[in-house]
Parts: sequence; structure tokens; C-alpha cells
Amino acid sequence: MTTVQVSTPGGAYPIHVGAGRLDRLAESIPADATAIAVVTNPKVAALYGDRVRDALAATGKQVFFIELPDGEAFKDWQTLNLIFDALLQNRLDRKAVLVALGGGVIGDMCGFAAASYMRGIRFVQVPTTLLAQVDSSVGGKTAINHPLGKNMIGAFYQPIAVEIDTDVLTTLPAREISAGLAEVIKYGMIIDAKFFDWCVANVAGLRTLEPQAITYAIQRSCELKAQVVSQDERESGLRAILNFGHTFGHAIESGLGYGEWLHGEAVGCGMVQAAQLSALTQGLSLQSVRRIRTLVQEIGCPVNPPELGTERWIELMQVDKKTEGGQLRFVLLPEIGQACVGVVPQEALSKVLEPDTASATA
Amino acid sequence: MTTVQVSTPGGAYPIHVGAGRLDRLAESIPADATAIAVVTNPKVAALYGDRVRDALAATGKQVFFIELPDGEAFKDWQTLNLIFDALLQNRLDRKAVLVALGGGVIGDMCGFAAASYMRGIRFVQVPTTLLAQVDSSVGGKTAINHPLGKNMIGAFYQPIAVEIDTDVLTTLPAREISAGLAEVIKYGMIIDAKFFDWCVANVAGLRTLEPQAITYAIQRSCELKAQVVSQDERESGLRAILNFGHTFGHAIESGLGYGEWLHGEAVGCGMVQAAQLSALTQGLSLQSVRRIRTLVQEIGCPVNPPELGTERWIELMQVDKKTEGGQLRFVLLPEIGQACVGVVPQEALSKVLEPDTASATA
Repeated sequence: MTTVQVSTPGGAYPIHVGAGRLDRLAESIPADATAIAVVTNPKVAALYGDRVRDALAATGKQVFFIELPDGEAFKDWQTLNLIFDALLQNRLDRKAVLVALGGGVIGDMCGFAAASYMRGIRFVQVPTTLLAQVDSSVGGKTAINHPLGKNMIGAFYQPIAVEIDTDVLTTLPAREISAGLAEVIKYGMIIDAKFFDWCVANVAGLRTLEPQAITYAIQRSCELKAQVVSQDERESGLRAILNFGHTFGHAIESGLGYGEWLHGEAVGCGMVQAAQLSALTQGLSLQSVRRIRTLVQEIGCPVNPPELGTERWIELMQVDKKTEGGQLRFVLLPEIGQACVGVVPQEALSKVLEPDTASATA
Repeated sequence: MTTVQVSTPGGAYPIHVGAGRLDRLAESIPADATAIAVVTNPKVAALYGDRVRDALAATGKQVFFIELPDGEAFKDWQTLNLIFDALLQNRLDRKAVLVALGGGVIGDMCGFAAASYMRGIRFVQVPTTLLAQVDSSVGGKTAINHPLGKNMIGAFYQPIAVEIDTDVLTTLPAREISAGLAEVIKYGMIIDAKFFDWCVANVAGLRTLEPQAITYAIQRSCELKAQVVSQDERESGLRAILNFGHTFGHAIESGLGYGEWLHGEAVGCGMVQAAQLSALTQGLSLQSVRRIRTLVQEIGCPVNPPELGTERWIELMQVDKKTEGGQLRFVLLPEIGQACVGVVPQEALSKVLEPDTASATA
């Protein structure tokens, strides 16, 4: 097991990465917890419910399970309210601890429930998808969707621990592995050129979940993310670079309907678009754009954006949380391993959004 | 104008108290705000909408008004969502500023909306009831109700400024003045015996809104509350004493249906019950219980609790946020001006809840 330490003004906590962590969850439950509520979905409960129940039994505390319907389409207030209903019906108090057992949707909803229940109780992240392990479970972003935009309602709220069991990845479909790897390679692109090169060299091992490769990729991703959020918990500056590819990606998800493409797939494609935009505005070399496009393709993510029409693209991107005073702001790469946030000329954006020109650039 | 300074880990901000503050709201809007959304209700908008619009026009920024239905019965997710709908439809971004113009319900909902919209934007409290001026607008507690309990879903989230215009009190019905004074006298009971004596001596001036008396009462209440929340923003200890009378009060509100008694009326009565409980368990003198009862009565609040039946009382009190491991915890007074939090023997609680015994004690 390796431990990565995160420390933010909102709280310091360890991320434990290793095989078999699910069986040792009791280690992350504080002694003064009055009860434990595990928030999960039916699919994850069927796979790991019994193991987690047994592991938590070691605490001697009462353990409740709360099962939410599965999928991004349910990341809304109605589903969030199922958590509050269950917590109140079982009279869980302020010293109860929530456990988010699942992917990003479960982590986001359980985290926001923990942030808001009685104005804040403790919670532990136990991410069971690669995407959640390398991204959403670290850093304290929690949220639900609104019909007018993704993740529009939420909180910055840190867990008390993150438990990453690398064994669970073997049950994931290949498409989800690819989607998770999109966020892994993102860290290389925005802050660590060496890690980008390492990913290029190890892409085969990553896709086949070769234990040493995937464990290092998760650990390094968590370290790089922890570095960023430790410096800027509330996204007032630096943290925004973690959204590389996300302005395009969110537009894809929302334009096609949530769930059509996986979040990581949309981000993978969005990073290629953002790289093209960087070539037009920041002097990123065309060779670097090609390397990014190739790596996104090799991890198994789509590289050709859906045809939404330029006007619709821009409308969808307007609700992005980086927008200020109506002006779209993009995370851009002057070179691989370096990122900045800025506005771009309309022509450059139009070029990237017109399918013909875009493929010509790449 | 007087300024009271609050400083907590979650933010430092000024409370301005004075006549005519509504006309100077522009002073509290930061220069980099991209837009202003005023959250209010139709009653308050009719009284002060134009003045506030004119005052904010001085900023040169776009100003939106969001009107919510009036009353505690609407302090729920559906109404909160009206704020999110309006913010997203108008494409307000992270640098927009919300203004809570109204009583405690508006302040709680606007505050929680500010805490959650895009994971947190800035907001200014402009309380227009006495209760909100001396209590809910200071300290950063925000929340909505759940069918199973009051204020169960919310956040600790500090405003960037509180603007208290003492002129607005003259439009309030007498019953609301009484309800507000309940929280004023509470500060004397729990931390400042001299202020309690001052309230006893000035009760007539307070009820008639004699300007010097009411301004001092508001300022002193804000100072005392600021003292407490500066030491304990998230209610891990000391802050709980601000809930003196509230465990009984919440049970009254929820048992009779929200809105039947005003919050301050329920708290007024609850403080008499909590004083009786303090006499039975903390050695508070019977003379002090009588002084508390008399003052609650003289400010115009009810002192005889509704007959809910002991079992129902306890059931209603169980959802209180101070409960730990199923055990009810009460704020109690060893003497006037001093408070502590503790559990009580069942017999003592039963005595207070049985109508006959309770009036015998007082």
C-alpha cells in the first residue's frame, strides 16, 4: 500500500492505494463515529456489498446501506434526497460517517449529501471505477446536475480519507478503463511532461491493467491532483487547469445527453480539441497535438467530436463554470506539461468547432 | 452607523448597523462582481424593491430580482431550486453576487443557494426582520427544511457583509418584534448577565422600537453572536449554546406545523422550558426561572407550551442536531449569563413536559 497525503484549508487526509483495501475499510472509520451509512448503487452492492459489510463490522458500529439508482441521469436532487430520507429515517446524527462506495456519480452525491446533512458530516471516498480513483474522489469537489448544466449545484467538501482498492478494476468493462485513462494522461499533459512520456511508453500495460503499471498511474495521478488542490482548494486559480478538455467535454455530454458518451470519453475527445485550440492560440506544436491525439486514441477514447453545429457548441459551453462576464475561458497548453487559462479569439474557436478544419489541424 | 466585525475560518466580514443602510447597499458589492441577483419575496419587494434597485444601480452592474413565495412552509428544495433556475437562465457566473433581502427564510435559502451554486459564490445579507437582524443573518448558518426536520440540509457559509437598516423595523407587526426580541434576550441569558439586566430595564423601549434602545440591542446581539461564532464557526462546541431554548422551540414549531407559532415565539417559550429544566438539573435558582419567564412574557412571547403529550415531545426533539448516539442534549443555564450543554435525567425532562408540574415549577 502507498499513501498520498492531501492537505487543503478544508481538511487534510490520506489516500491509500493498494490491493485489498476494501477489506480494511474499518481503518478509516474514526472511533467516535456513531453509525456508518454506505451509499452505493445496486451494481456495486452486488459485487462488493458483502465484503464491505464484513469489513465495517469490525468497527462494532451500526452499518446502513443506501442504494441509489445507477447512472449520471440520476445525479439530481430527487436521488440526493433519497440519501437525506434514509439518514433522517434512521436518525443518523452529526457524528455519523458516510461511505461513498462506487464511481464518480456516487462519490459526488454522497459527498454533497455529507456536505449538506446537518450542515456537514464526515465521509470516506471508496471509488470503484478508474475514473473516480484518479480524479473525482480526490480534491473535495461534490455536486449534482441541474437540467441547465452539469455539476452546477454542489460544494467543495473534503473527505476524511480515500480508500483505493486496485483489485476492483478487473471487473470494469474496457470502455470504462479507457475513460479513466483519459484523466490519467491529462495530468501528464497539464503538469508533468515526464509522466506523459511514461504513459506513452506504458499504454499497453495500462489498458490491460498490468498491476505495476496501473498502480503507479493511479498513485502518480493522485499525487499530481493533490499537489494542485493543496495549492488551490476552491478553484480560484491554479485548480482550473484540471479542467483541461472539460469545457469541450461537458458540451459533448450535455449536447448528446448525459450518459451517451462516458465522461472520460468526452474529456478525451475534448482534450484533442483543446490541444487544437492551443496550437492556434498558444503556439503548441502540431507535433504535440498529434502526440496528444494519438495517445487519446491509443487509450481507446474517441478523437472525433460529434457534429453539434458551431452555434450549439458555443451555447452548451456558455454554462461552463469558468465563464466570467459571459466570456468563455479555456484551459490551454503552451506545451505538453504546462497549462494556462485564457480567452481565445472567436475565429480560432470556430476553426476547432468546424469538423473539416479541425481534422485538417490534427 | 456602527460596525461589528465577525471573523471565522470561513471568512471575515463587517456587520453595518444603522438607519438608512438600504440606500447604501452599493458599498457592500465588490468591484469585480459580474452581476447582482437580489433574492426576496413579494411582500419585501413591494416595500423596498425600488429603493434597493436604485441603491444597487450605483454599481453600474446588471441587477436581477428573484422573488420567492413567502413563509417557512416554502423553505424547501422546490423553492431553493427557483433560485438556481433563475441564476442559470440568466447565466450568472461564479463572480456574481447574491443579495438576501428579507427575513430568516430568505437569508437561509439565499445563503444556501450561494453556498451551493457552482460550489459557492459570494452573498450579502440584508435582513429586514428583527429576528434575522439579531440572529440568522450573522454567523453563516444556512439551510432548508426536510419533511422530517427543520434546517436539516444546509451549509456553514459566511456572507461577505451584513447590512442592517434599523428603519425597516417600523413596518413590522408587533408579533414579529416580540419574536425577534426573544433572540435578543437569549444572548443575555447565555453569556451576558449585564445585558439581561439592561433588557429587563429597557423592555418598554424595545417593544416600541425606541431608536436608541433598539439600535443598541441589535448591535449588542450581533457583537455577542460574533464573539461566539468567531470561536466556533462549525458548532463543534461553544456555538451550541446559541441554541438555548431551541430544542423545545423546534419541537413546538414542528409539532404544531411550521408557521403556526413564529420561530422566535417558539424559542421564547422554549427558553422558559429550558430554564425550568436548568432549575431541576443545574441548580438555576427559582428566582432566575421567574425572571426569565417574566421577561419572555413582557417582550410579548407565549410562556405556556402547547400540549403535545410527553411521548410526542420527545419524538419531535430526537431529530435535533445536537442529538448524539440517540441521546438528547440540552443547552442549560447554571445561572443567568452562563450556559452549558448536557444530557438530563428522563424524570427531569418528563417533569418539564407535563403541563401541571411545569407551571408549578415556574
